[in-house]
Amino acid sequence: MKNTLDPLEPKADKATVRRHNLSLVLRAVHDEGEATRAAVAARVGLTRAAVSSLVEQLLGGGFLTESGKTFSGQAGRPGTALRVARTGPAGLGVEINIDYVSVCVVDLAGTDRVRLTEHLDNRDVPPGEVLARAARIAARTLESAAEQELRPAGVRLALPGLVSGGTVRQAPNLGWNRVAAEELFGRALGAVRPGPGDLPVGSDNEANAAALAELWFGEGDGARARSFLYLSGEIGVGGAIVVDGELLRGAHGFAGEIGHVVADAEGPECRCGSRGCLEQYAGQAALLRGAGVDEQGGLPGVAELERRAAAGDARAVAALERAGRMLGLVLSGAVNLLDPDAVVLGGIYRPLMPWLGAAVDRELALRVVSGLWVAGGGRLRASSSSGDAARGAAALVVRDVIADPAGYAERVGTP
Amino acid sequence: MKNTLDPLEPKADKATVRRHNLSLVLRAVHDEGEATRAAVAARVGLTRAAVSSLVEQLLGGGFLTESGKTFSGQAGRPGTALRVARTGPAGLGVEINIDYVSVCVVDLAGTDRVRLTEHLDNRDVPPGEVLARAARIAARTLESAAEQELRPAGVRLALPGLVSGGTVRQAPNLGWNRVAAEELFGRALGAVRPGPGDLPVGSDNEANAAALAELWFGEGDGARARSFLYLSGEIGVGGAIVVDGELLRGAHGFAGEIGHVVADAEGPECRCGSRGCLEQYAGQAALLRGAGVDEQGGLPGVAELERRAAAGDARAVAALERAGRMLGLVLSGAVNLLDPDAVVLGGIYRPLMPWLGAAVDRELALRVVSGLWVAGGGRLRASSSSGDAARGAAALVVRDVIADPAGYAERVGTP
Repeated sequence: MKNTLDPLEPKADKATVRRHNLSLVLRAVHDEGEATRAAVAARVGLTRAAVSSLVEQLLGGGFLTESGKTFSGQAGRPGTALRVARTGPAGLGVEINIDYVSVCVVDLAGTDRVRLTEHLDNRDVPPGEVLARAARIAARTLESAAEQELRPAGVRLALPGLVSGGTVRQAPNLGWNRVAAEELFGRALGAVRPGPGDLPVGSDNEANAAALAELWFGEGDGARARSFLYLSGEIGVGGAIVVDGELLRGAHGFAGEIGHVVADAEGPECRCGSRGCLEQYAGQAALLRGAGVDEQGGLPGVAELERRAAAGDARAVAALERAGRMLGLVLSGAVNLLDPDAVVLGGIYRPLMPWLGAAVDRELALRVVSGLWVAGGGRLRASSSSGDAARGAAALVVRDVIADPAGYAERVGTP
Repeated sequence: MKNTLDPLEPKADKATVRRHNLSLVLRAVHDEGEATRAAVAARVGLTRAAVSSLVEQLLGGGFLTESGKTFSGQAGRPGTALRVARTGPAGLGVEINIDYVSVCVVDLAGTDRVRLTEHLDNRDVPPGEVLARAARIAARTLESAAEQELRPAGVRLALPGLVSGGTVRQAPNLGWNRVAAEELFGRALGAVRPGPGDLPVGSDNEANAAALAELWFGEGDGARARSFLYLSGEIGVGGAIVVDGELLRGAHGFAGEIGHVVADAEGPECRCGSRGCLEQYAGQAALLRGAGVDEQGGLPGVAELERRAAAGDARAVAALERAGRMLGLVLSGAVNLLDPDAVVLGGIYRPLMPWLGAAVDRELALRVVSGLWVAGGGRLRASSSSGDAARGAAALVVRDVIADPAGYAERVGTP
């Protein structure tokens, strides 16, 4: 039955408790942005003395810094303000998409500190070569990070396909099938990276990583939704489902594949083997083709489409309206199934929202059975500009550091 | 960020800990079916003495019974076998559907002990009257329960619509709109029920309740899936999503509405205001109409359809095949979004599976992008016969008793 009632935790040994509490304190400062020891103690429910001892260890390990004096709001006694360090522990995120690779390093606060993006065509290139190229880009990014004294705890790949257990099971738009991405990337990075030791490599779906970036770093009206559908418009259409601030990953890790939800049972064949998938109507190629822009045009093509739509080009506007209807159609089903707070459109949909949005919203208002979707009600929005898949992936690495700072210190050492 | 790290629980007062531990022990016996005090102590991590004291209280309160002597497997010392009581604490579940009302009382083990079902047409009857009728049926059921010495802690309604905060926001097939179902039912039950005091009334969507019954009581191959989509074929098509053994309820409690996911954008108008909803192709009326059976025929109509299909009637078989294709089409989208372990078809789909199943499975195998859906792979199945919405609703009441037996003793008293 549902209501899990766990026994009170058996008494943990002292070292385990301290390790746990180190993380609690680091996380408290991370979440607050800036906090005194007293504020941390109040938040985590430990004594001031215990917090002070933990803070000393975190300062020594380079996880926290203290800056100047501040006045605690409650007691009026001056306290030193703690912040997470801007150097040291960091995360490396590598988004490999169809027509670009974007690598970034974030610090403990999740701030994007180094970014290197290359636009290139990864289709019809052997997976090993794509991953080796990405590793070279990552190595250059790591050089910049080292100059900023940032030392990533690991790498997380963000990949446009079905990712599970370190392997891309399928990425139709890349033409990948059972590619051991983590292993290939890790080997390639080991060969080109300066410095000793291997960085642990993880991997995730790119829309998942982008959705987490939206959850953690999204700004602006309504960015605080805790349950939302995220769509990433690229050459393919990726998707992710966030429920109560957590990714819904599915039984095999393959949830969120909205690009392959059927929009029209009798529609054109899709690279996935099915017919009439949403991608066939709202993917980048379909959008460009519908607007009469060269469908191989990549991001410059999208910019051209945006220019034409802004200039009132009837064909461009009609193509975007059509794609918006199909997006709305499929999204209405997803909203009926999942009842999220919001729908967030990212990737190429972000700049195209002025011409897509109304049609999407209209379909949703017509077809969401709860009647809770009102066109113009603000529940449909473009993704924030402050997060993307590479940043989300890098932040996942940092999240692991925050969950176990002692583990990072053991592996990577202290400054 | 994701990894929530809670501080170690502050020291709870003794009474709260005892209350919590009472539930732990009751739940341990409930989950095991039969257990010695020693086995309970091992499972919950409390001392044998503490468990014995808690067991005494639970025996006194009528939550547990002990039966004969048994031998514990490990020590060889005889121990008394504990079981949850077959009398006393119970739950009342009331499913109000379009063309029937089914009421059941389950005991602490979740066993269906009393069942009263009336087939009748609830359409075009004022909601207050439908609920009053259901209350009379419930009162009769309670009389039978009392004769069996079962004393329900409360009632849970299972309703075919969008249910939130005690109100049916919308039930298109009943024609209900913002009906204060809990209040109306509670008042009606208070007027007709024998005995003192009001039973607390709760409410839920019927597919949600049926999915929980499937989760908790499902039997047979594959019934142990912890993540599945549940479809309830009735006059409408209800749906529920179970993820890791929990209902996914959505931001407003309206998740799972698969009956109103679009199957064909240009399809016939639906009572919900949209077009081409799955219900228009796979609801009971569409199925019967397609097969040339009187679409107002209700359950006898479904039995007639089943007879015709079994006899090889071409029109009946074709209608079921068509409905199966549309079910599979919409389900493929839901599987791409949610990546569940299994899809479970309940309600009228259960007897019709021999003629629906292959088409559903085929569409899924064609359209699920992970390639993990193999036709005939066993991930599509009919619901178990051992659970339904009324039982699921009643079990939800019992679950609350198990979560706080002391609360039940305070409210309802001891035997």
